[in-house]
Amino acid sequence: MRVSQLLNPTLREVPAEAEIVSHQLMLRAGFIRKVAGGVYTYLPLALRVLRKIEQIIREEMNAKGGQELLLPIVQPSELWKETKRWDIYGPEMFRLKDRHDREFCLGPTHEEVITDLVRGEVRSYKQLPLLLYQIQNKYRDERRPRFGLMRGREFIMKDLYSFDRDAEAGAESYRKMYEAYTKIFSRCGLTFRPVEADAGAIGGTGGTHEFMVLADSGEAAVVFCPACAYAANVEKAESQPADIGGNAPVEGKKEVHTPTVKTIEQLAEFLDLEKAKLIKTVVFKGDDQFLVVMVRGDREINEVKINNTLGPFINLRMAEPGEVRELFGSEPGFIGPVGLRDGITTAADLEVMKMPGAVCGANKKDYHLLNVIPGIDFKPDYVLDLRMVEAGEPCPCCGVPLQEARGIEVGQVFNLGTKYSEALKATYLDEKGQEKLCYMGCYGIGVSRTMAAAIEQNHDTNGVIWPIPIAPFECIIVPVSLKSEAVVETSEKLYAQMLEAGIEVIIDDRDERPGVKFKDADLIGYPLRINIGEKSLAEGKVELFRRKTGQMELLDIEQVMTTVMSMIKQG
Amino acid sequence: MRVSQLLNPTLREVPAEAEIVSHQLMLRAGFIRKVAGGVYTYLPLALRVLRKIEQIIREEMNAKGGQELLLPIVQPSELWKETKRWDIYGPEMFRLKDRHDREFCLGPTHEEVITDLVRGEVRSYKQLPLLLYQIQNKYRDERRPRFGLMRGREFIMKDLYSFDRDAEAGAESYRKMYEAYTKIFSRCGLTFRPVEADAGAIGGTGGTHEFMVLADSGEAAVVFCPACAYAANVEKAESQPADIGGNAPVEGKKEVHTPTVKTIEQLAEFLDLEKAKLIKTVVFKGDDQFLVVMVRGDREINEVKINNTLGPFINLRMAEPGEVRELFGSEPGFIGPVGLRDGITTAADLEVMKMPGAVCGANKKDYHLLNVIPGIDFKPDYVLDLRMVEAGEPCPCCGVPLQEARGIEVGQVFNLGTKYSEALKATYLDEKGQEKLCYMGCYGIGVSRTMAAAIEQNHDTNGVIWPIPIAPFECIIVPVSLKSEAVVETSEKLYAQMLEAGIEVIIDDRDERPGVKFKDADLIGYPLRINIGEKSLAEGKVELFRRKTGQMELLDIEQVMTTVMSMIKQG
Repeated sequence: MRVSQLLNPTLREVPAEAEIVSHQLMLRAGFIRKVAGGVYTYLPLALRVLRKIEQIIREEMNAKGGQELLLPIVQPSELWKETKRWDIYGPEMFRLKDRHDREFCLGPTHEEVITDLVRGEVRSYKQLPLLLYQIQNKYRDERRPRFGLMRGREFIMKDLYSFDRDAEAGAESYRKMYEAYTKIFSRCGLTFRPVEADAGAIGGTGGTHEFMVLADSGEAAVVFCPACAYAANVEKAESQPADIGGNAPVEGKKEVHTPTVKTIEQLAEFLDLEKAKLIKTVVFKGDDQFLVVMVRGDREINEVKINNTLGPFINLRMAEPGEVRELFGSEPGFIGPVGLRDGITTAADLEVMKMPGAVCGANKKDYHLLNVIPGIDFKPDYVLDLRMVEAGEPCPCCGVPLQEARGIEVGQVFNLGTKYSEALKATYLDEKGQEKLCYMGCYGIGVSRTMAAAIEQNHDTNGVIWPIPIAPFECIIVPVSLKSEAVVETSEKLYAQMLEAGIEVIIDDRDERPGVKFKDADLIGYPLRINIGEKSLAEGKVELFRRKTGQMELLDIEQVMTTVMSMIKQG
Repeated sequence: MRVSQLLNPTLREVPAEAEIVSHQLMLRAGFIRKVAGGVYTYLPLALRVLRKIEQIIREEMNAKGGQELLLPIVQPSELWKETKRWDIYGPEMFRLKDRHDREFCLGPTHEEVITDLVRGEVRSYKQLPLLLYQIQNKYRDERRPRFGLMRGREFIMKDLYSFDRDAEAGAESYRKMYEAYTKIFSRCGLTFRPVEADAGAIGGTGGTHEFMVLADSGEAAVVFCPACAYAANVEKAESQPADIGGNAPVEGKKEVHTPTVKTIEQLAEFLDLEKAKLIKTVVFKGDDQFLVVMVRGDREINEVKINNTLGPFINLRMAEPGEVRELFGSEPGFIGPVGLRDGITTAADLEVMKMPGAVCGANKKDYHLLNVIPGIDFKPDYVLDLRMVEAGEPCPCCGVPLQEARGIEVGQVFNLGTKYSEALKATYLDEKGQEKLCYMGCYGIGVSRTMAAAIEQNHDTNGVIWPIPIAPFECIIVPVSLKSEAVVETSEKLYAQMLEAGIEVIIDDRDERPGVKFKDADLIGYPLRINIGEKSLAEGKVELFRRKTGQMELLDIEQVMTTVMSMIKQG
């Protein structure tokens, strides 16, 4: 490819609309252009990156026995009504009607369509396992599309669905996909971490892992153990519950006057106690039910865990002050678990039970209770892990302090169980002729998101730094001046040689100043750049610049090909 | 690939819903499954065919300097309002609203989006020409989706758009694409013909050609000259106007009583005259205007030509009987061009002017006029080519009788001119710094349609007969019995060898009767089949079956690889 013929409009200015680096750089480097909010055109260089990621995915899916097919984007509402998701999905689903007023959606995911296919075609256990996947556009009508390709409304995904005989076989498919994903992101040249995650709206009974590309700008927080393999999304992460120590107080509980002291911080200061001695009591409303949740004063409540262990609730939210007043007959800020009237569900985090002599609200304006003994002064209906884990807490597996990192979720593997096969009646006959439900899993990779995440992880102030396996071109040749015949001739010869050798090479044949060419090459992020200048060429030498290290080498012209090829091989 | 692991559900019965062969065979051979009217899932074998066609297209587009990008499917209404097509497109366009009530469509085509891109990025003549293309889903809400992939609502297309400095450069892009298309369909192994065509709704000022895959079941009729290169869609086809001969009559025109004689057939019989002596007069209504159109009695009127030469009209239709009565003061069936009141537009086909002494309606119930001399007894406002050309008429280029064939339109190249660049203000600055409109062309190929057309052209009663370049696999190995160890071993060894040699091979490792395997292989249409049976294997031989010719050869096992490879090479 020749730069002079390439549609690759680079920009010098940072576009005002772009909040994050990958979005800014993709606009500046001429990779994407916005057509509507969350809807983009992929220009030729971006498409090359996408196709490379797709090809890596395809190879690894096929290696695990995956079969590629292509499901429709436009999906009839009838299928979604069978699983009841037509109503559950809400405004994130793009809906439309055809000329005969039939309802359709633009597929945000394809469980319904694929399960419908399988129920029609699979009869026998002999046809299982089936690993079916596709790579294509998905749609999600985000309330506020932003961050470029990171949260688009039209985006490219790979989604694979596994159909197995039972949970055991399903676990094997899950393991295969976990392996494949690990290979895929390694082959893309990305630093990533698979973490235990929450199953969210897709649901299902089994486990789930997210694959996180690590980047400081990542919107997800993960914790991981530096000693063992444990890693999890903070939404899901566990740790060993800490015992704050001390014995139960000899004196019984007693009221203390704490005028206008409403927050945990104020209370700790007022009583001159550590926050770890205080019980934080928060009221939630899930569906039509109130929940009183307690954690240690220095911890945060994890709503995902509440929803997973006590729900699922369609609308989980904090209760309004008015609702709290009605429920407790007291002001918010002074509520607590002691002496609650019957019929109020209470749930305490595991650590709360290890706080002898705690402090909590007295359910009376301007008063708290001292010397409260959990389990004696109040008995929660549930004692569960309900808190956010923090860096420094002990690993639930090995006890070593956990560390925290930020990541961008680029893939997720789900153990779905029989949720969809049950709703859609996707069954098979086993060896004994008995009808069984297919055991399912689903496995997604955000292809366009992976491209954006790669940039979040790999860039500097000059632009993108593509990992070689997914770079739009591996190498750019820059003839420093077009006025020198020797330069042009050598550049063109090397270009032809590299093409011949199967190197993905582009030549910047524009009549531009060298500075412009170098700036563009850095911005776009080609891993290797060969500068061919008159002066060094006179000595039979050319420059090889490595984008990642910033290292510049002067090489004999004869050496260039082999050096470049070995660098590409090393990745 | 192993058949035992492939999702390829073949059917013995012809599905009732499928009217045409390609639809029937694609369902029976396990290529597609219907999800909604005109919306299909492509199963793994179909996707392989599609990807092969796409790859051939991609290579030929790139060879002509095409750059691949990816435009959004979901398109904002604003762009379509700029070209006024938001209103013109009508119910064929799928429309939807996002959660903020903004209007979008699912792209039926991408002139708006691509022109919007180019107007934003192209400044100078130095950036032209630009040939930009994509391969992806398109949407058209057909009133009655049918014929499987032939007329779907969600279908795959390649669309390229050319941007040039002027008409001359545009013609060069057009020529390049014409060449590329010729190569593409040749490489796909299809018998096809490029024909002159009508520009239809996409519009534009220049010419257009359709690429027709020839098949008896084709919905389009084309005429072509066996002697020269002339070929055209009948909608567009021209021929030399025939002169029916004879001199103008000596007697003037006179009325003849023709009670209840209303049709051309009845009139010819009643008067005992050839239909070629009669003038057929038909009234059309286009927008708010009536048009009286005349052709020779044995010809058909071509509405496309009326629309192109006298229109364009948004709604061209035949007038209602009531409208005819009002306009002529006479019954339909007895109307004619003589003595019409002023203000009625009349248009005669070229041949009508070569009918001295013709017969036409007298504009009086139960009467016709004899001895009418066109040009004297009536003077049409327009004399134009307005008829359908038929086989046997002389070629407009060389006069040799034209022949007729049926075809399936799989591609079209359009010279768009400045229609879209003008509406969207896509301009560039020329060498003199003057602002000029980009000159555009657009070039489509129906990818999924090409797959269907290939089947319409290449099949027999047993199933599909894929041309080798687009076959899902080039070769299938059928171990005739799995009970023989020698058979299984030889089959597996050959399978491994062929994979190694880069042959696209599949092995039917199912424990099924040979008849079932052969039937499936024929139905699916693998070009080459190798049967490995116990008896012949004992003599060191295997059978090679060619699907296209039905020819069966007994080959030495050592010969098989080279024979298969040379057959694939020959195509």
